[in-house]
Order: sequence, then C-alpha cells, then structure tokens
Amino acid sequence: MAVRWPSGVRSGAVACGIKGSGLDLALLTLPRGTRWAGVFTINAAAAAPVTWSRSLRDRAARALVVNSGNANACTGEQGQAAVHRTAESAGFELGLGRDEILVASTGPIGVALPVEQITDAMPRLVASRSNDPSGFAEAILTTDTTTKVSTRHVGGASFVGVAKGAAMVSPNMATMLAFIATDALIETGELRSLLAGSVDRTFNRISIDGCASTNDSVYAFATGDVTVPHEILAGGFEEVCSELAEAIVRDAEGGTRLLRIAVSGARDESHAMTLSRAVAGSALWRAAVHGADPNWGRIVSALGAADHELDLAALEVAIGSEVVFSRGRPTGSLKAAAAAMAGSEVLVTCEIGRGDGSAEMLCTDLSEEYVTLNAEVST
Amino acid sequence: MAVRWPSGVRSGAVACGIKGSGLDLALLTLPRGTRWAGVFTINAAAAAPVTWSRSLRDRAARALVVNSGNANACTGEQGQAAVHRTAESAGFELGLGRDEILVASTGPIGVALPVEQITDAMPRLVASRSNDPSGFAEAILTTDTTTKVSTRHVGGASFVGVAKGAAMVSPNMATMLAFIATDALIETGELRSLLAGSVDRTFNRISIDGCASTNDSVYAFATGDVTVPHEILAGGFEEVCSELAEAIVRDAEGGTRLLRIAVSGARDESHAMTLSRAVAGSALWRAAVHGADPNWGRIVSALGAADHELDLAALEVAIGSEVVFSRGRPTGSLKAAAAAMAGSEVLVTCEIGRGDGSAEMLCTDLSEEYVTLNAEVST
Repeated sequence: MAVRWPSGVRSGAVACGIKGSGLDLALLTLPRGTRWAGVFTINAAAAAPVTWSRSLRDRAARALVVNSGNANACTGEQGQAAVHRTAESAGFELGLGRDEILVASTGPIGVALPVEQITDAMPRLVASRSNDPSGFAEAILTTDTTTKVSTRHVGGASFVGVAKGAAMVSPNMATMLAFIATDALIETGELRSLLAGSVDRTFNRISIDGCASTNDSVYAFATGDVTVPHEILAGGFEEVCSELAEAIVRDAEGGTRLLRIAVSGARDESHAMTLSRAVAGSALWRAAVHGADPNWGRIVSALGAADHELDLAALEVAIGSEVVFSRGRPTGSLKAAAAAMAGSEVLVTCEIGRGDGSAEMLCTDLSEEYVTLNAEVST
Repeated sequence: MAVRWPSGVRSGAVACGIKGSGLDLALLTLPRGTRWAGVFTINAAAAAPVTWSRSLRDRAARALVVNSGNANACTGEQGQAAVHRTAESAGFELGLGRDEILVASTGPIGVALPVEQITDAMPRLVASRSNDPSGFAEAILTTDTTTKVSTRHVGGASFVGVAKGAAMVSPNMATMLAFIATDALIETGELRSLLAGSVDRTFNRISIDGCASTNDSVYAFATGDVTVPHEILAGGFEEVCSELAEAIVRDAEGGTRLLRIAVSGARDESHAMTLSRAVAGSALWRAAVHGADPNWGRIVSALGAADHELDLAALEVAIGSEVVFSRGRPTGSLKAAAAAMAGSEVLVTCEIGRGDGSAEMLCTDLSEEYVTLNAEVST
C-alpha cells in the first residue's frame, strides 16, 4: 500500500535548479494546531536554516521548506537573508507569516544559496502538494542512492518518517535530515521529550565517518487527531527513528558492509556508548571489515585507547558468534570469524565485565570508494 | 658522514624469521652508568614488552631487545613468559641480569610470539654489534618504507635517534617506537622530564589515522660522557624527536600529502591542540586533501563539532596563504586555494580569535591506498 502522510499533512516537491538535475526543493504543510519539536546539530558552525528554525522553537509551525544541493552553512549574513526570503516567499504563497515557516537545507557548505531559484519556484512548489510523501522524500536527497521512508500504525495513530543522509554522519547528528509526522495528539513538551529520547537512542547511535555536520535536524510534527497512550507514542516514534537511522547507514557513501557494535557489561550506558563509538571510529578496524579480515587486535586496541582502565582479563570479544579474545588472550577460530564477516552485515560484541551498561552502534566499513567519492573536487 | 652511536653504545640486528624475510631482531647495548627514561602508550591493552620495560623504570638498563613482525600484545600469560625468556636469553649472552634488559615489540596484535626464534638467534645477535645504527634502524621496521634516523651534535654532545611507525599512529603514542641515545650527562629525573616534554611537543602531535596503539614507546639513553648546559640538552632532544616524528608522518601508510594544521588564537595550548586534532581527525577533510579539493567547509565543520562555543565571526581559515573563510563567510579564491593543495605538503591555518593559544599537528591525506593496505587479510 502506498505511504500517505497523516490526515491534513501534505507535501510537494519541484526541481528549482540548485542541483544539476532532479528534485531539489520540498515543502511540507501542516494543519492548524499541529505541535512540533526539533532536535538540531550542536556544531558551532550550525547553518543559517538551523539557527532560524531553532529560533521558532516556541511558535506554532505551519510549513517547512527544505532544499538539497546547498547547505547554506558558513555563508554569513547573506545566508541568513536567504533563509528570511525563503520563509517570506513560502508564507506569502500559503497565506502565513514568515515566522510560521521552518527551513532546512542540506548539501555543500560555504556556497551562496541561489535564493531567487527558490522564490521563483515557490508557486509551483505550493501547487505540487498532495498527501503522497514520495516526491518530498526524493527532493531532500544529496549523495543518497535511495529514498528513506518509514511508517508505523499503532494504537490507531499513524507515524510517517522521511530521512536523508549518506556521509558526514556521526553521533550527535550529521548531514542528516529527518521529518516525522503523526496524527497522534501529543502536547509540545511531551513531543520534545519523546523526540529527544528517540533521537538519542537511534540517530545518535549511527556513525559513517565521525564527522558531525552543520545542518543535522530531526523534526517531529503531531497533528492531534488521534488520542493514544504514551507508551504507544514512544514506541511508534522510536521504531520509525530506528528504521530511518538504519536506512541511512545502509546507504552510507562507499559503505559495503553494515557493522553493528554491541557493547555490554560496561560501567553504565554512557561508558558503553564511549566504547562502542571508539570501535565504530577506528579507521583501521573499519578497513579490516572492508576486507573481511578478522583482525580483532584493532578492536581491542580501540577499546584500550578509549578506556585506559579497561581490564583485559575481564574482556570478551566476539565476531559473529565466534569468541576471538577472552581472559586476556586469543581464542577461537580466525577462519570462523572471517566467515562471519563475509556477508553484508557484521556483528561485533564486546563484553567488558565491569557492570550492566550496554549500547549498540551502527556503522559501515571503510572502503576505497568512500575516499574516491570524498576526494572528488566538488568546490 | 656515516651516523655512529655515541661512544660505548652499540647495536646489532639479525633476521630470525618472525617476519617472512629481512632483519627483524635488534639489540642495543649500553655502557655501565647509562641513565634511561621511557614514555609508553597509555592504551589499557599495553603489550607485554611495554609492561615489562615499564616495570624496570627505577633500575639501570644495560641492553634493549626489539623485534618487529609481532607486537606480542593481547597475548596473555604466554606473552609475558615470552618477554621473560627474551630478557633472560639476552642477559645470559651479555653476562647481565634479566632485569637489566628492556624489551620492545612491534607488528600485528594477538599473535603468539615465536620466542624460540629469538632465543636461538641471540648469540648471532650479540655478535653482530657495532657502533653503526643502520641495521638496528632497519630491523625495527614493519610496513615502513624507509629507515628513520636523526642526529644532532650540540654543545659537544651527540644525539642519535632511530624510529619506526607507519600506521596506527595517533596523538598519545602509537605503533611507533623511537630510541634516542646521547653521550651527554643527564641525571635520570632530568632525562625523564626532557623526554616527556619533547615527546609531548613532537610525537604526540602527529596523527596518521587516530588509532592509538598497544606498543608505542620512546626510549632515551644518556651515557654521561659530556657535560652540556640544560638548554642545549632540551634543544637537542626536541630537534631529534621532531625530525623523527615528521619522518614517520612522511612515511605514513597510503599517505600522499603531508598536512600541517596550525591553530592560533585559541584559549590556550590545550584548546589549540583539541582543534588542530579535530581537523587532523576529519576523514572528510583528509579525503579532500587527497583530491586537492579546497573544501574548507569540512575544516570549519570539524572545528565547530569540536568546540560548540566556536565564534564563526572571529574565525579565519587559510589554505596555504589563501584566506578562504573570514568574518563568518567565504572569501578568497578557491582556485588559489586548490593550487596551494597541489604539492606534497599542504598548510592549513586556523585563527580562532579567542586568546593566544597555538599548536600544530602533522598528519596525512586519506587515500584509497590506505584502505587497500589495511583491508588486506593479515590474520
């Protein structure tokens, strides 16, 4: 069955010429009374659209404009003016004030946004709206190879999420945009805490290259048509966020294998995150994953570099189901471990033996193609 | 003129078969009365030889055995026993106690050290000694493509340094070994502080892939024949360390360009280090350097992710001498910046505008070859 936005939510998409070809400008419009919440990058070089949407935190939002192909980041006052003109233009066409219009951008940093192309396309963009999210999902992509849509129907409410992101992705948000709409009734305060919790456990636990970007934003919109219990709301949000986060990693630039790093037995959850992030951040281990080489010394070395108190005698490391390091020394079969790395998904489990903290990170291998893609002259 | 160890210091090297071919076992012997100091990895998975040498901190050292081709790390009690047997064997041949013998290893992690090959070769190794360091410099190499030797003659004293290291190199030590011998008279306490200071300003400011290893060690030996003023000692040490550190980066696995990241105007030196390390650690920027793409947005994004208080309006970024970002917006010529990236050395300067802290990091670009080299099945 085709995916549809919750009742009253509509989106449109057009090609306005910011990218060389294809859809690059998207609009989401929301019924009166919709509550919204946003989680934004903590990068100090946050882009002009991020600063704008963040400033509207306590106001009602009725629409959101997204462009791909240009991040409008590090663009100074000119970049801020471009956001204002975008919001004014959408407000004019929709009969709304500019302060009711959220803005998001994604693409290369430091290039002036050709805002006339956006304002010229605004009438067409408004006219293109329907309840089908597929054009919106396509128009927000940059180097992504597939659209990323996730839906859930729980407790009579529907949750529809759309995301993009394929590089410069790291914990604490990245060149990643996600938008989740639901017809559930959720007050703003609850929406904020639901979104923050879900983002923390999903988008903030993926890493492609450890680069936290200037434009990351996750938006949630709740139109309020359906009343559902809190637990169901939380589950719906988290499942949609989780599916989108995994889709982003699966579409990682140059990634050929999904790497799941599960740490257990850490002091607490935060300690577990630090350790799983250290393994996810090891270029040497990620290159080994690319070659399906069970070079577990690179895992132990990454753990030991991240936690100088790590007790090797209590540590157990497994690749797939093969335990390769235990009680301070090598064990198991490297052949079996290599076999567990041959597929499209590799699981590493690290039992630390310190407590009951656990956490999981999703990342990808490091391939020659990642380098080639990111060494291409783009400026 | 050929390089020679300071008077009384001798070294030997043989092929004992740990590596497939070539020299892989080295010995350094020191005259009675030599003072020594060591700086070791802070990785919790420190290798057995590191633990051994560290435990001899307050004893006199008369010899050092180094093997390449095997790190003897994550090898449990068997690994500790192998170090003991190595030290006993060298002690026996040299007429010394095993507690007078330091041990260092470098190579793959988690593989049992074939210690019989070392003990069998010990008589040959002892007999191979001379005052020429070239065999020693060759025998400690792993994936390095060149030997790394640095000498200085200052204030009547000589300083001879030898190092290895080509991957898994990161601030706070790495798969890196360095040995510096001088005939200067330096008491142990002063030697420790001189070495720690020099290492902090040289080896701890290079990064190849952000991976801190299990075996990093820098050793200093002072035989005490020549009395020279403190300032001259400090200068000699630091110059030798600096030359060796730069040689390691220039020989980085898969590196094609040397990247020098100079941060100034930071709050203090530590803040400057954090920021320069963030740029050195950005896979996206390092890939751009590989492609000579002046994609400075990746520099600004790395800085902003490392310091959430960064003031973009006060920031100035230059590639070579071309200022590309200033007062919160792009400036300068991308063509000129690209030209400044075309050579074998790329300079990035970041003026933060907050204080007078400055620091410089040396690293390399990220190439397809780095991935290929590290994805090869080695286990």
